[in-house]
Formats: sequence, structure tokens, C-alpha cells
Amino acid sequence: MKKFYIAKTRRLRDTPYTEKIESQGLTAYTVYNHMLLPASFGPLDESYHHLKEHVQVWDVAAERQVELKGKDSGKLMQMMTCRDVSKFKIGRCYYSLIIDEKGCLINDPVVLKLSEDKFWISIADTDVKLFAKGLAIGLGLDVKISEPDVNIIAVQGPKSFKLMEKIVGSKILEMKFFGFDYYKFNNNNFLIARSGWSKQGGFEIYVENRKAGQELYDELFEKGKEFNVKPGCPNLIERIESGLLSCGNDFDYEDNPFECGLDKYVDLNMKADFLGKKKLIEVVNQGIKRKLMGVKIDLDQIEISSGKPLYDKNNIIGYLRSATYSPTFKKVIGIAMINKGYFDKSRGFELRLNRKASQGTICDLPFI
Amino acid sequence: MKKFYIAKTRRLRDTPYTEKIESQGLTAYTVYNHMLLPASFGPLDESYHHLKEHVQVWDVAAERQVELKGKDSGKLMQMMTCRDVSKFKIGRCYYSLIIDEKGCLINDPVVLKLSEDKFWISIADTDVKLFAKGLAIGLGLDVKISEPDVNIIAVQGPKSFKLMEKIVGSKILEMKFFGFDYYKFNNNNFLIARSGWSKQGGFEIYVENRKAGQELYDELFEKGKEFNVKPGCPNLIERIESGLLSCGNDFDYEDNPFECGLDKYVDLNMKADFLGKKKLIEVVNQGIKRKLMGVKIDLDQIEISSGKPLYDKNNIIGYLRSATYSPTFKKVIGIAMINKGYFDKSRGFELRLNRKASQGTICDLPFI
Repeated sequence: MKKFYIAKTRRLRDTPYTEKIESQGLTAYTVYNHMLLPASFGPLDESYHHLKEHVQVWDVAAERQVELKGKDSGKLMQMMTCRDVSKFKIGRCYYSLIIDEKGCLINDPVVLKLSEDKFWISIADTDVKLFAKGLAIGLGLDVKISEPDVNIIAVQGPKSFKLMEKIVGSKILEMKFFGFDYYKFNNNNFLIARSGWSKQGGFEIYVENRKAGQELYDELFEKGKEFNVKPGCPNLIERIESGLLSCGNDFDYEDNPFECGLDKYVDLNMKADFLGKKKLIEVVNQGIKRKLMGVKIDLDQIEISSGKPLYDKNNIIGYLRSATYSPTFKKVIGIAMINKGYFDKSRGFELRLNRKASQGTICDLPFI
Repeated sequence: MKKFYIAKTRRLRDTPYTEKIESQGLTAYTVYNHMLLPASFGPLDESYHHLKEHVQVWDVAAERQVELKGKDSGKLMQMMTCRDVSKFKIGRCYYSLIIDEKGCLINDPVVLKLSEDKFWISIADTDVKLFAKGLAIGLGLDVKISEPDVNIIAVQGPKSFKLMEKIVGSKILEMKFFGFDYYKFNNNNFLIARSGWSKQGGFEIYVENRKAGQELYDELFEKGKEFNVKPGCPNLIERIESGLLSCGNDFDYEDNPFECGLDKYVDLNMKADFLGKKKLIEVVNQGIKRKLMGVKIDLDQIEISSGKPLYDKNNIIGYLRSATYSPTFKKVIGIAMINKGYFDKSRGFELRLNRKASQGTICDLPFI
């Protein structure tokens, strides 16, 4: 596959760690929330095996925060999400779908409740800030919406627990999944959550002070030597195997949560209203017409930058949306939106790419 | 300067022309509106000289359209911009600033009025659709907001007129700057505007039918042979020399139109209200505290991915936001936000990059 460089300009913002990762063997970027997000440090499969065994430090500053602050912040938060915000507790993270008036997905952030009138929406790659601003202005809500200068470092992998214990002390080991709290390093307070975009365990450090964050970044590598620490980034193989959905890849503005298998993050019984609630009730009553499923394909490499049709003879049964070669399954695996009538896992399909037909089968998510 | 690849996935959408440009010598991409935008076909200066002398065909599908349709489309359009929408005529393009409630810039699109109740907002790189949706929902407006599948081909350069004449006939030569009309090619209608992101003259073809657009793309190269046609893309050297501002590079959410020298696109005397009108009147009364200016720096190459401070001794006089080596001036030229008190063009400044200090001077925009 041909490779192309990325052209850098201020519009694709750098992070406080850009200079560091570029001297640590970075090979490719993606762009996320108008910011550089590292996409590989050499072969994906090497990084995949390392992530599953050791510990990695990731520059995920591109995971930007939309801050809602003020009297009506909870009201605005509730209007945008189909989870019951009245149940949100301070010190907890909530995977919350942002829904539009059609019941379709705008984003799938993790929301942190910082205080009764302050939320951080840790967004995927769409400008949720502009949506929130439009709504707040239109409704005359008393809420201040901003993007604070928070630049997340993720520490991921099974040895992340030992590494973080060495850095901030053993109290961090008591934190439950999706909890967050403040921890001290070098006399600076850091909000740290037990979360991250892998299923290998770990933490996300919400860095609010750039210089302190850079020092912490270096310390993670210094103290991490004994755990074989390496720089890394969200790993395409690991995240597809784990069934972690990616906004813009696996779903977009035309998809609803039920089509994406995200039923458990939709609360249609809560008292409060939210955008698209009526539409989602309709979807439940009518049933979905397609859904995201796993696929396995007899190929040893793949790269896609649009949805690719999957065929049963000459019928399109769905579209492949994300794909990678998996060293575990020794074939290409992916996530596809499959049309109703083709959910049957015993039937195969054909993918026609670059004038070559490959055979594949459907399966459930996650793969592992 | 180290170079890094771009990692492709569906989230960075391809265009109907992606396969073509990748076989035509493309070397680098940028990402714009969640889509691949070509950024170079070999050395920038070669492409620069070619653009100023001949004709280029650009895949600028990433310049997405936000369509407003319905009874309240004009009302919503007016709410978002500081130009007087009541004066917009069907068949004309309008460079229109999208302003938030603070009077700051959200985007700087060209707006096409297609009919009394239909507009296309041809956006720069922020999700204006989400802002418009939020506003429309909050205000209960009767307007349908969508991103139609329009994929622009730009034809730019002094010989673009002769080439387009050969493709769609001589009537296109009568079109005035920023006019648009429909023209036929192979029995398909194309909306074509006399516009484009260079100062070398040319057209933008708003392709609504992918297959017809791909045929037109090929025909432009076939018929363009005699004019020395080449594939191209917005050229960093040409656009900085011409003073074409780039949203996200030269200005961002914290800047107002007056700081960017965009005074003539702000109408504070119109009857209608728009977001941020009061704030902009305040800005006029108080005067601006900084403004975008040109800079020339004694360097023979540069690449920046964040604003870089410019020093007068130890005072920061402003930040460099875009920069490139210019073969015309035989030095680096750029666009910088300069603080009040330092607008004097006779004084120099120092740029400290990669532990090296370079001397520079301030000048007016555009350079040429």
C-alpha cells in the first residue's frame, strides 16, 4: 500500500508531548479533534504484543475536553445524552452517547462529573463544543462552554498498575474502573482516571499544567524501565479485537445507538427528556434495520478509508468500516454494518478490493 | 525536518478522486473536515510556479457543504453571520464569517444562495453543521440541516479559463468573480462558481454526482494537456503570499474579525441581529488589541504546528501562525498575530526555533 506524509500546520495542533514522541520512534499520525494523534511507532503487531504484555505511555492529548460550567451545565448535559445524568456521581466517569434530534450519534465521549455544576466531556473526533454552544445559545442556558488546556497521557497495559503505583503511590490501586481522583506528583495535582482506549487495563492522566505534564511524561519512562515501558498509541488491532468502537470509523451521524449495539447506554425510562428520545423509542418499537458486527476475511493485509461493500452474490449485505490484520486470528478482522436479513453467522460474504475478491464470515463483537 | 506518514482509516474520509490523485504523484495529505485533502505533489515551489503560470486541477472535496433548507434557513444563516443575508442574491457567492456569541470566529466559509430557502455553506475546517443544528434545535427553527454529497473539483491558474471554455463552452467566460451558474458536461449539470483558494483565477465545480464528477476529472486532464495541466492543491506559498487566511492556522475560536483585518465582511449597521453583534460593537469602540500581519524571516525553511512566539528582546510581540519559504522573497514569510504596541513595521523581531534565533520584520498583508 502506498504511503503518504502528513503536512503539518498549526491547524493540526501539536501537543505538549509532540517533540518527545517524535524522538521516540513515531512513524505515523492521524488527526483527531484538529490535533495530532500518534498512530504508530513501527509495526502495529509488535506494539500490539507489547501492549498486551507490558506497559505503554500514550500521547492522547487529542482526546479534548469540552467543559460545561455553571447553573445549567447538568441540564445541557442531559439534553445531549441518553444516559440519566441525574445519577452521575462526582468522581466517576460515564461512557455517554451524544445524540441529535434524530436519535443518531454525534459523539461517544466519556463524561466526568467534576462538581455539581461542572462536567468534562472527553470527546471523540467531532466538534461537540459547537453543538453544545449552539444549543446553549438557542435555549438561553446559563452555562459556560470551553475547551480547557487539558492534555491527557494514557498509561495502558497490564503493568500500568505497578508503574503508576511507583509514580503516585499505592492508593491508586484502590481506584475502581471508571473512577477518578486527584494524585500528587512533584507537588502538582493530577486528575487520574482508571480508564483508557484499550482493554489491557490502565489509567488516563488529565494534565492541566503543561510543564508538570512533560516532567511526568519523562518520569513514566524513567520509572517504567523495569517494566519494559514503551511509547504507544491506541492500537488498531487491539481495539478491533476488543470491540472498542471508534466514532467516525465504525459509526457516524447516520447511525443510532441500537444499530451499534450500545443499548445499555440508552435509558428510555428516565424521567428527563433528551434530544432524540422520541426517535429512539420509535427505533425500539420498529426494530433495527442493520447492526454492527465483527467480520473475518481471508486476507493478510488491508487499509480502508471508506466503507467497503460486502457481497452475497450480487447483493450488498453491508459495509466494512474498520479493518486490520490480526496476528491472533491470522487473517483480517473488522467491524461492519450488516443489513437485516444477513445477521446469520453461518453464511459467508465476499469483499472485492483492488480488483480482487476475498471470502469472509460474520461474527459477534468483541472478538476476544 | 522529520516526516511522518498519515494513517488512513474511514474516519479520515476519502473522496471520489482519492484513487486518481494517489496515482498522479501525490506525496502528502492534510485532514480537513474529517476528510483527506491533498497537501503536496512533490516540491511546493515547483507547484507554486506551475500554478502561477498554467492550470491545475485540485481535489478539494474536503471543502464540505452545510446545506440549510426550509422556511427558516435565511433566519438561521443571518443569526450565524455578520454579513447582511437579506442582500444575498441567488447565483452569487459570499465570503461570510461565522461568528459566535462572543463575536469570535467559528469559520470563514463562502456561502452560496441557491434559492430563497436554500443555502450552501462551503466550510473551512470546523463542524459548522453541529453549531447550526444546536442553534436550530434550541430556537425551534424550521430548517433542515445536512451535509450533501458534494465533492468540489477546483480548476485554478491563469489557463483555467481556456480549459473550462473547452470543457463547458465559452459562456463560462462571461461569469463574474464569485458568480455561479449551472453548466453541462456529458449531459450532466454542474454548479460551477468562479472562485477558489488561490489568487491565480479559476473555478470551483460543485460535483453532485460522483460518477459524472470522476469523468469530468479525467476530461480536465485530457483536454488540459495543451495547457500543461497538472494535479495540485491549495499551495502554502501562494496562499500566504496572497494573504488568503486559513481558519485554524491564522485565526481560531479566540479571534475576532477585526483582529484578522476582515472589517469589510462585518456589517454592524444592518437591521438584523446576529450572534455577537453587541460584542463586535464593543470591539469597534474599544479598538483591537492585536492584529494579523505579515512577517519576513531570515530562514530558508520552516515547518510549524503551533503558534511560535516572536520576541523583541525578552518581550513577546506576537505569535507566528503560518509560515513557508517563499522563492519570491528568498526567505521565510508568514502570518502572525501581533500585539498592539508592536505594529511599527520599522522594528525587527527574533524567532527562536530549535535553539536557533532568526531575525525578522513585520509587513502588511498581502505580500503580493
